[in-house]
Amino acid sequence: MDALKNRIITDGKILDGDILKVDSFLNHQIDVTFLNEIGTAFKERFKDCEVTKILTIEASGIAVGCATSQFFNYCPVVFAKKGQAKNMGNDAYHAPLHSYTRGADFVISVSKQYLSENDKVLIIDDFLANGEALKALISVAQQAGCELVGCGAVIEKAYQPGGDMIRSKGIRVESLVRIKSMSVENGIEFCQ
Amino acid sequence: MDALKNRIITDGKILDGDILKVDSFLNHQIDVTFLNEIGTAFKERFKDCEVTKILTIEASGIAVGCATSQFFNYCPVVFAKKGQAKNMGNDAYHAPLHSYTRGADFVISVSKQYLSENDKVLIIDDFLANGEALKALISVAQQAGCELVGCGAVIEKAYQPGGDMIRSKGIRVESLVRIKSMSVENGIEFCQ
Repeated sequence: MDALKNRIITDGKILDGDILKVDSFLNHQIDVTFLNEIGTAFKERFKDCEVTKILTIEASGIAVGCATSQFFNYCPVVFAKKGQAKNMGNDAYHAPLHSYTRGADFVISVSKQYLSENDKVLIIDDFLANGEALKALISVAQQAGCELVGCGAVIEKAYQPGGDMIRSKGIRVESLVRIKSMSVENGIEFCQ
Repeated sequence: MDALKNRIITDGKILDGDILKVDSFLNHQIDVTFLNEIGTAFKERFKDCEVTKILTIEASGIAVGCATSQFFNYCPVVFAKKGQAKNMGNDAYHAPLHSYTRGADFVISVSKQYLSENDKVLIIDDFLANGEALKALISVAQQAGCELVGCGAVIEKAYQPGGDMIRSKGIRVESLVRIKSMSVENGIEFCQ
């Protein structure tokens, strides 16, 4: 997705610690118009698929998930919660998640009533690096007996193992851009 | 907003502990079509206002904020983060926040670069009860020197003090539905 590459080059910032900061348009300040382009791009990648539900994770996945839903007949978006809020009830699917960004371990939770074996689920998230978030979401979808259509990530750090690890399990993963290498000194290089 | 009252009556669940569970369409599973109706309703309430930025808070405010943005010329949505992620940097506005739902204290953070004194800010959130989240967001907007257009809440528990407390400071608060009373035994009564 060339528009996304250009946006990352223009507005992204590479920080020490292998951080690509895109919070001017994706995950702190949100460019809603641009998100619609992102949703369109996911539709293009998964146009051969029937999707009845989008599954994502708070917080950064929510906006991307909702934007993408518009192009899949406004299907419901379910976002996994980190931890267990008082108002969630006990009837939930859980999976462990380690967040490298926050340096903490979570359990993610999704109420059982919002995923069923009749659902064809597209998992959406903003970043794919070590694949921890996607792995946890895949686990939830599998616990629910859903048909997993695939996973869509806005930005994949292809030099980290998450994407290939998930693909090696036979799960379809589509990333709108894939980063081959990245450093403060040399900038960013995308995969072809 | 009658459609929202009907949706709450149909799909909402009142639980012990003064909890109104609307996670089938608003804050766990998201009905994206219905969110557009909610965004339309906020536009109707604030149609006299120029809005350059929507400010909300993770996680439940994000979807509502993005849906509302569409009706204010797709203005950027900034969501406050709970805590301080590694990739945020130190140049942020902070405000304290007590979450009754989670029974915990947070600091919320918004990067300084995404709010300025030139911004006309509409604050959006899903629930207004004790007003803790809105108070924290108002503090952030004021620290940034923004013009605060007002606050929009999807559901206000009008029997709790948050809404009136904020209005008493001369800040405009528009809630799409206001709940007069609520109990497991007697159900829900809306304000006129």
